[in-house]
Amino acid sequence: MKIKAGIIGGAGYTGGEMLRLLINHADVEIVFVHSNSNGGNLISAVHTDLLGDTDLRFTEEISSAIDVLFLCVGHGDAKKFLDANSVAAGIKIIDLSQDFRLSAAAGNDWVYGLPELNRERIRTAGFVANPGCFATCIQLALLPLAAKGLLKNEVHINATTGSTGAGQSLAVTSHFSWRNNNLSVYKAFEHQHLNEIGQSLIQLDPDFNQDLNFIPQRGDFTRGILAAVYMESDLTAEQAKAIYQDYYSEHPFTHMSEKNIDLKQVVNTNKGLVHVEKHGNKLLIISIIDNLLKGASGQAVQNMNLMFGLDERQGLKLKATAF
Amino acid sequence: MKIKAGIIGGAGYTGGEMLRLLINHADVEIVFVHSNSNGGNLISAVHTDLLGDTDLRFTEEISSAIDVLFLCVGHGDAKKFLDANSVAAGIKIIDLSQDFRLSAAAGNDWVYGLPELNRERIRTAGFVANPGCFATCIQLALLPLAAKGLLKNEVHINATTGSTGAGQSLAVTSHFSWRNNNLSVYKAFEHQHLNEIGQSLIQLDPDFNQDLNFIPQRGDFTRGILAAVYMESDLTAEQAKAIYQDYYSEHPFTHMSEKNIDLKQVVNTNKGLVHVEKHGNKLLIISIIDNLLKGASGQAVQNMNLMFGLDERQGLKLKATAF
Amino acid sequence: MKIKAGIIGGAGYTGGEMLRLLINHADVEIVFVHSNSNGGNLISAVHTDLLGDTDLRFTEEISSAIDVLFLCVGHGDAKKFLDANSVAAGIKIIDLSQDFRLSAAAGNDWVYGLPELNRERIRTAGFVANPGCFATCIQLALLPLAAKGLLKNEVHINATTGSTGAGQSLAVTSHFSWRNNNLSVYKAFEHQHLNEIGQSLIQLDPDFNQDLNFIPQRGDFTRGILAAVYMESDLTAEQAKAIYQDYYSEHPFTHMSEKNIDLKQVVNTNKGLVHVEKHGNKLLIISIIDNLLKGASGQAVQNMNLMFGLDERQGLKLKATAF
Amino acid sequence: MKIKAGIIGGAGYTGGEMLRLLINHADVEIVFVHSNSNGGNLISAVHTDLLGDTDLRFTEEISSAIDVLFLCVGHGDAKKFLDANSVAAGIKIIDLSQDFRLSAAAGNDWVYGLPELNRERIRTAGFVANPGCFATCIQLALLPLAAKGLLKNEVHINATTGSTGAGQSLAVTSHFSWRNNNLSVYKAFEHQHLNEIGQSLIQLDPDFNQDLNFIPQRGDFTRGILAAVYMESDLTAEQAKAIYQDYYSEHPFTHMSEKNIDLKQVVNTNKGLVHVEKHGNKLLIISIIDNLLKGASGQAVQNMNLMFGLDERQGLKLKATAF
Repeated sequence: MKIKAGIIGGAGYTGGEMLRLLINHADVEIVFVHSNSNGGNLISAVHTDLLGDTDLRFTEEISSAIDVLFLCVGHGDAKKFLDANSVAAGIKIIDLSQDFRLSAAAGNDWVYGLPELNRERIRTAGFVANPGCFATCIQLALLPLAAKGLLKNEVHINATTGSTGAGQSLAVTSHFSWRNNNLSVYKAFEHQHLNEIGQSLIQLDPDFNQDLNFIPQRGDFTRGILAAVYMESDLTAEQAKAIYQDYYSEHPFTHMSEKNIDLKQVVNTNKGLVHVEKHGNKLLIISIIDNLLKGASGQAVQNMNLMFGLDERQGLKLKATAF
Repeated sequence: MKIKAGIIGGAGYTGGEMLRLLINHADVEIVFVHSNSNGGNLISAVHTDLLGDTDLRFTEEISSAIDVLFLCVGHGDAKKFLDANSVAAGIKIIDLSQDFRLSAAAGNDWVYGLPELNRERIRTAGFVANPGCFATCIQLALLPLAAKGLLKNEVHINATTGSTGAGQSLAVTSHFSWRNNNLSVYKAFEHQHLNEIGQSLIQLDPDFNQDLNFIPQRGDFTRGILAAVYMESDLTAEQAKAIYQDYYSEHPFTHMSEKNIDLKQVVNTNKGLVHVEKHGNKLLIISIIDNLLKGASGQAVQNMNLMFGLDERQGLKLKATAF
Repeated sequence: MKIKAGIIGGAGYTGGEMLRLLINHADVEIVFVHSNSNGGNLISAVHTDLLGDTDLRFTEEISSAIDVLFLCVGHGDAKKFLDANSVAAGIKIIDLSQDFRLSAAAGNDWVYGLPELNRERIRTAGFVANPGCFATCIQLALLPLAAKGLLKNEVHINATTGSTGAGQSLAVTSHFSWRNNNLSVYKAFEHQHLNEIGQSLIQLDPDFNQDLNFIPQRGDFTRGILAAVYMESDLTAEQAKAIYQDYYSEHPFTHMSEKNIDLKQVVNTNKGLVHVEKHGNKLLIISIIDNLLKGASGQAVQNMNLMFGLDERQGLKLKATAF
Repeated sequence: MKIKAGIIGGAGYTGGEMLRLLINHADVEIVFVHSNSNGGNLISAVHTDLLGDTDLRFTEEISSAIDVLFLCVGHGDAKKFLDANSVAAGIKIIDLSQDFRLSAAAGNDWVYGLPELNRERIRTAGFVANPGCFATCIQLALLPLAAKGLLKNEVHINATTGSTGAGQSLAVTSHFSWRNNNLSVYKAFEHQHLNEIGQSLIQLDPDFNQDLNFIPQRGDFTRGILAAVYMESDLTAEQAKAIYQDYYSEHPFTHMSEKNIDLKQVVNTNKGLVHVEKHGNKLLIISIIDNLLKGASGQAVQNMNLMFGLDERQGLKLKATAF
């Protein structure tokens, strides 16, 4: 019997990706796709690449005849939705916003949904807070060291995101004439994802208290995040690689690459790749993900798979764009 | 039991796409992937997006313990390969080069592998000549009219291709510094794909003898072809739409869009979309495909599915990149 | 003594280009730059590339102590501005909108400001209607034939424009996530620039009455238009080239290229390049311009130079971006 | 009387930029443009954007009837050229390669040509070694602090370059299909420009001995470098800004921006912009240049202007591309 899924906020970028994934997921039936602004419209009229793939329409009503509810709404709106709507007991919730990522605010009912950190807890969770895109990419670069208590110096992070990370709203910085061939820094040292990253590092290493110096950049591409992360370390290159290899050996989507990596290796997949180099006393980790998949909707499906006892990879064996 | 597949020329662009598709195809087992220059190397060392997805290596040897052979080599090299190597009887061959597309030269053993034209013949074919990318995109715009004998005036075609259409060889026109933000016309009125297009139109309408005026352009994107095609026509918009709707109603990858279309609706999918408008006495058909999928390797898999009695869509329910 | 210039609508794309040009124009003094929304702000706060180049500020007031007024406002707003504001006699006006391009509506006071068509009339004009960008590019491809009465068959035009052609307003089709790597057709056969093109062709050849079949496309680059134009013609390639060579021999910005051309040859310049080929009975002309320069503000400065008796090239010897 | 200039290596990227600049430089006459591979060819046949701007041809011979010689050849080839060819006494040389940038190797005859560091020495220099592109961008971010002896902690640098930084040679990483929408790290901590940066910092502060941690990245744009540089600092934001404002107050091309900056503010100009922020104990400096202009040929012209007593800005008041 298929998992019955409902989607709130189906007209946005993460909602669209959720649909692209679930339509081809062998174990899922989409029961409804809610949209405030598009009720009654064909899904393929909004996500036009789905023409010929689905005749589903957006609804303005929410059914409780579901097993899992995906919240694909903006930050702040997930909490508002759950405050305003009672979700029947037993329905699992996966929230893609940032509203429940910090356990201090979210409480114990919510599990932070990064499988590479919390896979076993996710399997039994009722409510999963899906990580942020930058947060996922950067944590994949840091978790293996934190798990060994080896993050003993401040961490330097530069990461560049594609335009879809900012969603579909129109803004000067998302105008093609501005963004094409451009590059810029924003929210330096103050990006909101630092909170969830710090929380995860402390979960693995309660003594962790180093600065995370993070320079986010807006890139002139649509999909993907590349993070270059480094810190002082006593580890040799071989020791470091062994730690990453070992940590990710059981995780089907995250891999260490012996060769240097480039962003397009993961675009349109749910994979994370990390590459490790040692230079002098600095350990460099390069990490790449697709911000909309491993950084959002793909990871949400991965979490759903875990929560329902499916193969973690179900519905996520995606063809990379490659070019 | 799975279909055993071999690939000749696995290190190029179409070979890579073939691998990305077949690795996730439930009914196929890849027996060997031949490459002259990469024998012994990991496939993921060349197609680096496959890291973590396959441990296969390129071979320098060719096994005959296969059911189907894909030729992903350059134009001219497919014929040379078959001249130099005897392929055991019973092994089906799908050639992605242009060497066997023209029946006058290829002979009766080869079927031109455009399912929207020759689906029934492909089902029983031993040897299939996979169509060219421009040729596929343009034929999808013209076949429904030709089938009705309605191509009675000269045809005007402007089509723009992504850079992957020119393969991985390094050239001035594939240098990023040149091609980024650039646009240019090449081979105006003389593109080699005109021959196979003309052959198909005559197959459907033996009386067809109109000029095909074709302006190919090099676009500054990597994947996809958009063709704008028009001709004088007595059809009303509604009549024309009905003809296209009807012609493609039984074809799972090609659809008519009521709304205007844009290239990214099909990127990283095996779909073709057509949109029809009437302006004065001119009928305009816009047609889009992904040049590496519906225009090459995806169509090759579609042909394989037909040749082996599988669902035409098997292994081809691909997640669009969308952005 | 310098020409005193005022600009209405200085905060938009064409206003910005006007400023980039006039700031370095040896014979011009900018008296005021009006903006409804930015009065009092530094110009370099809006056109941020001008930081360090000018300390000018936008004004909300309009001075009449000027010799020339540039209207860089939206279509319809130029007429409204002139209806609402009396411009002192003797001030020359150059309007970049489409409001006064059609002489039937504009009346005899306005000269259509395409130097390659009307250079002598522009020299003595008081009011100049600056041509549209598509219109400029396409006319450069057609004027030499029209001048000889050689446009005797219908004309086929496909032209692709950069995103700046649509201005700075935010729209779905200008969102980076949508437009990057994308291509689409719009306003097929019905683009508003067809009117001014037709008017010019009739000016040169009163008997001209052929269809102009025009497919405009949105490209995924920011600057430039490439038009591919063809028609049946009895001319040989050599005859046609001689006609173009001759027609443009006295025009300093428009040149015939013996070799095929690509868009970036003219980006960030005021030049137009045309290339001519003959294929069978079809004559193909490829034409390229920068839509914001030869297609807008550069041509406006060229017109100003003519109107004030300066060297046509003054202030327009621009370094091409080239890459 | 004009400065007579010769160019060695005129067919490459920096040679082309030199030509684009010098053709419009009021005080320069180009005497010859040497190219090994293009002798006798029209310059506009190679640098096709110059069609209509110059009828000059490449030569295979070198004249000594010049005042200044620009070496636009590859690294290593400048030294070879000067070893093999005697340049007449009195001819000034500006070398754009890295061969003479390090004074330990170059000797005292050569001045490192960064006007923001060595303007007075450049005025009287006979031989100038033009800085590297990354080196220029990063030094603009660091010189004001070094001049005050305020670089007391290790420095963290992430900088992303456009594709033209790698020249016109064809390589996998310059293939459009690979580079478009891609991002990658290379030569982490080991880029060769670190040597010249360190040399300059020690020139200003002989006690400087901090690590320069430099992560270079390949961006998917053609022109420009953006560097994000930070270090621990006791300075307040206001103190730091005052230092930068003061340091650059006399330099016509380098400016401090109060607002955050983005790469396209400087593309196709000779400007450098820096922006300063303080976050906690970290001082962040963002720095941007056009790699081919302020990072190469533009700076070479700036140096020539200084060497010949011209206004530093002569021939360099360039129209930004802006979009």
